[in-house]
Amino acid sequence: MKEFDTIAAIATSVGQSGISIIRISGEKALNIVSKIFIGKNNKGLEDIISYTMRYGHIIDMVSEDKLDEVIISYMKGPKSFTAEDTVEINCHGGVVVTSRILEEVIKAGARLAEPGEFTKRAFLNGRIDLSSAEAVIDIINAKTELSVKSAVKQSEGRLSKEINSLREVLIEDIAHIEATVDYPEEDLEEITAENASRSIKKIQEIIQNLINTADEGKILREGLNVVIVGKPNVGKSSLMNALLSEKRAIVTDVPGTTRDVLEEFINIEGIPIKIIDTAGIRETEDVVEKIGVEKSREKLNEADLIIFMLDTSRELDDEDIKIINYLENKKYIVLLNKSDLDKKFEEDKLNLLDKDNFIISSVKTGEGLDELKKKVKDLFFKGDINIGDIMVSNTRHKQALIKAAESLSFAQEALNDTSAIDLASIDIRNAWTFLGEITGDSLGENIIDKIFSKFCLGK
Amino acid sequence: MKEFDTIAAIATSVGQSGISIIRISGEKALNIVSKIFIGKNNKGLEDIISYTMRYGHIIDMVSEDKLDEVIISYMKGPKSFTAEDTVEINCHGGVVVTSRILEEVIKAGARLAEPGEFTKRAFLNGRIDLSSAEAVIDIINAKTELSVKSAVKQSEGRLSKEINSLREVLIEDIAHIEATVDYPEEDLEEITAENASRSIKKIQEIIQNLINTADEGKILREGLNVVIVGKPNVGKSSLMNALLSEKRAIVTDVPGTTRDVLEEFINIEGIPIKIIDTAGIRETEDVVEKIGVEKSREKLNEADLIIFMLDTSRELDDEDIKIINYLENKKYIVLLNKSDLDKKFEEDKLNLLDKDNFIISSVKTGEGLDELKKKVKDLFFKGDINIGDIMVSNTRHKQALIKAAESLSFAQEALNDTSAIDLASIDIRNAWTFLGEITGDSLGENIIDKIFSKFCLGK
Repeated sequence: MKEFDTIAAIATSVGQSGISIIRISGEKALNIVSKIFIGKNNKGLEDIISYTMRYGHIIDMVSEDKLDEVIISYMKGPKSFTAEDTVEINCHGGVVVTSRILEEVIKAGARLAEPGEFTKRAFLNGRIDLSSAEAVIDIINAKTELSVKSAVKQSEGRLSKEINSLREVLIEDIAHIEATVDYPEEDLEEITAENASRSIKKIQEIIQNLINTADEGKILREGLNVVIVGKPNVGKSSLMNALLSEKRAIVTDVPGTTRDVLEEFINIEGIPIKIIDTAGIRETEDVVEKIGVEKSREKLNEADLIIFMLDTSRELDDEDIKIINYLENKKYIVLLNKSDLDKKFEEDKLNLLDKDNFIISSVKTGEGLDELKKKVKDLFFKGDINIGDIMVSNTRHKQALIKAAESLSFAQEALNDTSAIDLASIDIRNAWTFLGEITGDSLGENIIDKIFSKFCLGK
Repeated sequence: MKEFDTIAAIATSVGQSGISIIRISGEKALNIVSKIFIGKNNKGLEDIISYTMRYGHIIDMVSEDKLDEVIISYMKGPKSFTAEDTVEINCHGGVVVTSRILEEVIKAGARLAEPGEFTKRAFLNGRIDLSSAEAVIDIINAKTELSVKSAVKQSEGRLSKEINSLREVLIEDIAHIEATVDYPEEDLEEITAENASRSIKKIQEIIQNLINTADEGKILREGLNVVIVGKPNVGKSSLMNALLSEKRAIVTDVPGTTRDVLEEFINIEGIPIKIIDTAGIRETEDVVEKIGVEKSREKLNEADLIIFMLDTSRELDDEDIKIINYLENKKYIVLLNKSDLDKKFEEDKLNLLDKDNFIISSVKTGEGLDELKKKVKDLFFKGDINIGDIMVSNTRHKQALIKAAESLSFAQEALNDTSAIDLASIDIRNAWTFLGEITGDSLGENIIDKIFSKFCLGK
């Protein structure tokens, strides 16, 4: 374990609540908290045992005034989140009282932690690999249960285990090739090349399978961008409300929940979906309106999916046509809405669109909503959403896999030409390095710093 | 200890953070969490010792899928916050993951706690009295360090200790009086009346002293309402910014802090101050503006203190005069601002105002700001703010003290007329009951429910 200074931060969300936690990690964690803690019957923390708690007060070091009633918990390294000695101060959840205690911890010798620094230490101390560390933040940011599940699996190190075993095979292949090059014997080069090629082919397949999971994984992690478009009064807001009502009651019932985090996301069959309402995209001379239309166009261009709503109780008009022209080459669903009203709508005018994507709906009566949800899922997920297997959800990991796959293709080319098998070993080594970027074994300090700086404070 | 069902809630503020805590309290707490916990090496919670922690995973009871990596801590009753068996699940701080675990806890047999229900149990189980329970929520809501300090002292039960000793004396007085009435002997009534009167006089003094602390206590708890008024461009925003810059850097530097809670409050010498900017109160025919002016008038009427800003580089005008007329019978400070510029201002036009409340200032150079802060403090606090003694900060407590004081006045009257000393015992008993409202000994269930329902969820 490397030696670092001792860091501290508020580890819970800051707000008015029952409990807050201040986390202190590092060699001096216990020593620092001892300076500002008085237990029952004046008991200190000197003899506290790992994985036990002690009740008492945090005091001002100078005035000895009691700052708050607390419970201290102690996890001795390496059996802690950071693999370092860790003390957690469990205090009342007020903004001022929590900050005041953190301040006293800093005065007593800790340094304010940077965002992600606790998790970074867990990584640098070798407790978890980089992809597991990244999964921790994915758990925290997860928008649906399915996203949590996928992140929890990754945090257990499944992906990195797979990557590590691939890297081991590659190292063996390199060793074989280099031995052949160093001690050339008759025909041996050909046999080695064949063996290596077979071995690498298997790895290529596994990598390709992992890459294939990345699109679905990314959606679970980041959510889908869905834009609803349609002319005024077609039922866009009603659709949003109908979809929003699907949200877990228990989340939204908790007062003080920072709703904005979730509010934007709708949960369709476990897929986090960000629904964006648009102003419409009709031609206009009005300057202000023009800006709105321009923004809508941008949103439509960035969308993963467009839900185009049509009002079948009205006739198709120019604005509808305008939108239809816009849908070409995009993923879309057409909602033929207001099916509960008399139909004044000529469907054959929609010949430009793919009828497979049509859904007859009435947001009012609920008709078509289940079909809509199923279609959204089917458009992005092949069959049932299965996160039992390893899933790549992080774009950084996907990029590394793609680069590794490329290098292995080059390696195969080199192996086909037996006179160049020493070149193949360079490509294989490159693939080995790219895979190491996923687990963090072959990443520079700068990039690692960058990854952790995106974490929240106190994690 | 009474027997209640087992309750659960998220005890930390809900948001994206490192850690969240789900707290479970009640007889079945350990049993419930055991159903959804798998420890390392499949270890359960059966043999967990009080005040220790255990690492593992929360699982879905049905699918046995891992929901999150957690640390469980266990506090066996009565040595816990609620005095009941309490389990805390320390999980990752995501909104979805935290809610999902709470949901599983509910499925496993707990009931979702109501706001304040944990603290209510601590009270109903006799671990803390009502005024200490109320202080818990004051700690959480505290706006400045001084407010925290005052609340921490109250949470330790100092006020209730004092109240309890007063009640004991009153009970003794009642006993003496009743003995005298029941077994009348010559002259005894007079002696008893004199003794009781002396004893009650002491109690009246103590109660009056407590009442005298209530104004200062209330300010520390709830903050001062300060309204800044003055015509446009007089320096109101600059003053607000200058005062805001006094805020603790450490609070505002924490990303994710729910700033709105604190943002509104400025900390002047430890006093939480809510500064309200006004639109001005000049006469206007414009309808929209009229509403603004009406609102400003309301704010001025509700203010604890008005800071009236004048621009000494401009001449006094009608709008200034309008405001001056408005200040009569109100607490105010007059800031003669822009002292750094040439003075075009005739001070003798301010004859209506109290010159003791004038401060020559320049928000730009900082002149007069320290004087302003000192004056704010002096207007509301006699001498140094001393919270070493007992302080009444809660309006409910103040009301009970006032009613107790009234009853004791009646008792004194009755005691003066020796033929009516049996009436005195009724008044003394009333006083005893009113004092009991502070500690919660003599409050109906409805009122107690009402008090706790104002708490936050998870507390």
